[in-house]
Amino acid sequence: MVLNLNDAIQACWKRIDEGQVATYIPVLAKVDPYQLGVCLYNVDSGKKDCAGASNVRFAIESVSKVIALLYAIERLGLTTVEDHLSSFDQILNFTREICNDPQITLNEEIYQSELRTGDMNRSLAYYLKAKETLANDVTTSLETYFKQCSMMVTCESLANLGAVLANDGIAPWNGERLISSDAATYTKSVMMTTGLYNQSGTYSVKIGVPTKSGVGGGLVASAPKYGIGIFSPALDQAGNSVAGLALLEMISRELDLDIFKY
Amino acid sequence: MVLNLNDAIQACWKRIDEGQVATYIPVLAKVDPYQLGVCLYNVDSGKKDCAGASNVRFAIESVSKVIALLYAIERLGLTTVEDHLSSFDQILNFTREICNDPQITLNEEIYQSELRTGDMNRSLAYYLKAKETLANDVTTSLETYFKQCSMMVTCESLANLGAVLANDGIAPWNGERLISSDAATYTKSVMMTTGLYNQSGTYSVKIGVPTKSGVGGGLVASAPKYGIGIFSPALDQAGNSVAGLALLEMISRELDLDIFKY
Amino acid sequence: MVLNLNDAIQACWKRIDEGQVATYIPVLAKVDPYQLGVCLYNVDSGKKDCAGASNVRFAIESVSKVIALLYAIERLGLTTVEDHLSSFDQILNFTREICNDPQITLNEEIYQSELRTGDMNRSLAYYLKAKETLANDVTTSLETYFKQCSMMVTCESLANLGAVLANDGIAPWNGERLISSDAATYTKSVMMTTGLYNQSGTYSVKIGVPTKSGVGGGLVASAPKYGIGIFSPALDQAGNSVAGLALLEMISRELDLDIFKY
Amino acid sequence: MVLNLNDAIQACWKRIDEGQVATYIPVLAKVDPYQLGVCLYNVDSGKKDCAGASNVRFAIESVSKVIALLYAIERLGLTTVEDHLSSFDQILNFTREICNDPQITLNEEIYQSELRTGDMNRSLAYYLKAKETLANDVTTSLETYFKQCSMMVTCESLANLGAVLANDGIAPWNGERLISSDAATYTKSVMMTTGLYNQSGTYSVKIGVPTKSGVGGGLVASAPKYGIGIFSPALDQAGNSVAGLALLEMISRELDLDIFKY
Repeated sequence: MVLNLNDAIQACWKRIDEGQVATYIPVLAKVDPYQLGVCLYNVDSGKKDCAGASNVRFAIESVSKVIALLYAIERLGLTTVEDHLSSFDQILNFTREICNDPQITLNEEIYQSELRTGDMNRSLAYYLKAKETLANDVTTSLETYFKQCSMMVTCESLANLGAVLANDGIAPWNGERLISSDAATYTKSVMMTTGLYNQSGTYSVKIGVPTKSGVGGGLVASAPKYGIGIFSPALDQAGNSVAGLALLEMISRELDLDIFKY
Repeated sequence: MVLNLNDAIQACWKRIDEGQVATYIPVLAKVDPYQLGVCLYNVDSGKKDCAGASNVRFAIESVSKVIALLYAIERLGLTTVEDHLSSFDQILNFTREICNDPQITLNEEIYQSELRTGDMNRSLAYYLKAKETLANDVTTSLETYFKQCSMMVTCESLANLGAVLANDGIAPWNGERLISSDAATYTKSVMMTTGLYNQSGTYSVKIGVPTKSGVGGGLVASAPKYGIGIFSPALDQAGNSVAGLALLEMISRELDLDIFKY
Repeated sequence: MVLNLNDAIQACWKRIDEGQVATYIPVLAKVDPYQLGVCLYNVDSGKKDCAGASNVRFAIESVSKVIALLYAIERLGLTTVEDHLSSFDQILNFTREICNDPQITLNEEIYQSELRTGDMNRSLAYYLKAKETLANDVTTSLETYFKQCSMMVTCESLANLGAVLANDGIAPWNGERLISSDAATYTKSVMMTTGLYNQSGTYSVKIGVPTKSGVGGGLVASAPKYGIGIFSPALDQAGNSVAGLALLEMISRELDLDIFKY
Repeated sequence: MVLNLNDAIQACWKRIDEGQVATYIPVLAKVDPYQLGVCLYNVDSGKKDCAGASNVRFAIESVSKVIALLYAIERLGLTTVEDHLSSFDQILNFTREICNDPQITLNEEIYQSELRTGDMNRSLAYYLKAKETLANDVTTSLETYFKQCSMMVTCESLANLGAVLANDGIAPWNGERLISSDAATYTKSVMMTTGLYNQSGTYSVKIGVPTKSGVGGGLVASAPKYGIGIFSPALDQAGNSVAGLALLEMISRELDLDIFKY
């Protein structure tokens, strides 16, 4: 590989100062902002290249929506992707499987904090319920959602997730199909247009790779042949990892990953 | 009085066909739309003139916001009108007093229905909580709100409420001050600019009298010298009583009540 | 009169520091912010009480909308108040008459500046045209609007305007009816709900008197028995005169003008 | 090629009844809705496959934005893509070149109609001017925009445009680079996230190919190896060609063009 990940991390390190860690719950507010890790999984060669804080565990937060969407499509089919997600145990098992990481557990302190401070999510859930687009019980749905946000992952977990999406739904580590080809395609399209909050359009142009961020500082990206997991907890105004996106942009440019380049 | 209320009711009766009763909860959906009642309380003479369905009890719904606002101002002062309303019993007692109607009770069936279907109100409450403008516990606040919406009143109850506002806060039936002059003034101003949902501006021009509506079909209006209570359950698109507003417009014109006419 | 206007001006003077003059056109940006004038016209006694910068001429700006609305109602009737205003000469004559001020002229420099910088107004006018709610030619309508905004008035001109509205449409200086009673009533209602930009609701509660502001620093208010003109060019974030509104609030309180107080 | 375009047109023909032609200007309102044409340019083989109304000329309308964006990027660079487009002659020449169609001319009747009815576009242009994001004179910019919308193209013109984008900016018919690789990549990304009005997200999932529509019924799409031009003037509520999008979805599925499928 032409790109040296350690050099790339060094080049993006100073961008950390432009962001700040999430502060809405104490556990996230205490995270050291000066961390930047990356894991790059080459689906063809099977080689995984990691650097920086790539083994640090962090809260998956909104990146879990990718997993929940895939799980819902598999369970319910593409035509009825509604919220029927009520069993966190099933989601946790599916997450461990698709991230190839049996160490993923729930951080109880984060979960309790999310439960206490999640009034905006409650407001949104009741809005969906009032509009009849949420099939399940609101309280159960929110508990499941807050639990899935509190799963602790590493760059490598997310690189594995990205690699499954980059490999048409088949786990590159054992050749097993984990999700259908249609589910993988659908999910990458949704990541491209909505994965980075209201900066999604900007980064579709700058990076050109389906990506999803979380306020824990995680990023999962899925380019042709590459699954990428990145972690850096200092966030920009939109809630995306500042140094993480800078690193992803560099990787996309150096490895020529922009899917609109053809 | 020049205006004959029976004639006025007859003139507005056909407007009922333009509206329909609220259907979001069963008890309201079953209400007979062909009802129109009015009660007009002349504060100076002390005479009360009622006609039509003036003794029918109906759910107060959003008209209760007038009472809750007055109660909050009295309890907390004008500078900190936040939500500290958690004891429904106190609000019920205050309502009975300001409406001069000890028969006002909670309709348990309406309350239970509101509790079951009130997801949009839940969404709004959690939104306020997330924005830190709701001091109290959300669940308790909502229970209190749904209970206050389920109080059963008559045109006469609301005419009495309007008469207190029309009499600078003093109950005209016994000369006792129930609310401060400032609370009455403040509340009439808020009723004028926001009392009829998104039709408030239109009716400030057409009627020119501070008014509050509820989806139970009730209207309370407070003009100089007059407290007015009206009931007609068929609602327009905005959620206001069609025939009720037609009747109020006729009363305002005939009795020359528009406060902008000077 | 209990209220001494010079004392009131002195009490409100320090509020000037909280605002700043409009800067979108050079002529307004050069206006001295340290000015505060008032004129109070008692319709019953016919006495006019003025103080401070009451003779300073300033650009009428959005206060002209009150005049244009009255003119449109008189010409077209209440049911078809559309924009048919194309002759500025007629509006200027009507303005001189209703303000009892033959000295009102167009400030050509302001007009030319407004023409050059009025792109947001152009955008709004073309939006109205596209939605088919603007009958006239857009360019002519905008020229007329920018000209009417550039008329130079004094506190006394605006006090006279307010006095006509306070006197049911009859000029108190000669007993002549200038506008219909309905036009006066309608216009005061619109002033109450929309006269102070997005602070209209706040001031309907604080002041309780129909008022219209302009970014030239002018205010016209019309309370029962009183027409009030105020000038102070330092504006708050919403575009309303800071010290001017403070003075109007004081006048309303001292003279007991709140129309919701009954 | 596996896909028979005549069969595909037949399969999508009945969808025409779900839409209706644009009616905001007479020339478009008179267009026969029962037309459906397609041209598919295989960049690798150089073969062009056309069927149905593929030679009918129609107004390019908003599809011209793709060309104007490419032209602006080439002229001004990616960092300052502002509106500096004032010479329609240059855009017309660039359009003829990138569409490989010297027959493209301005339809004067459409241009005059657009000029007369384009008040919403005027409103938007003045809004941009007021917000200081439009460098040029508004009137000149709008004339240029209305002219570029009135250029008459065929399915083949648009297939050629799409083929240049599909070939990294190089014209496949003569090997000449017409636009930079970066301009092509950038533009395809913008087409993906915003090319089909407020249905862009839906079709990014359903079709997965960068596409731009116009209210004349045209569609240009650019998939890896394929430039596609489609024409069918009956539009859905969002303003996109109903049968055209059905046909494009079928082509994408049959030829496996979804760029998120990897």
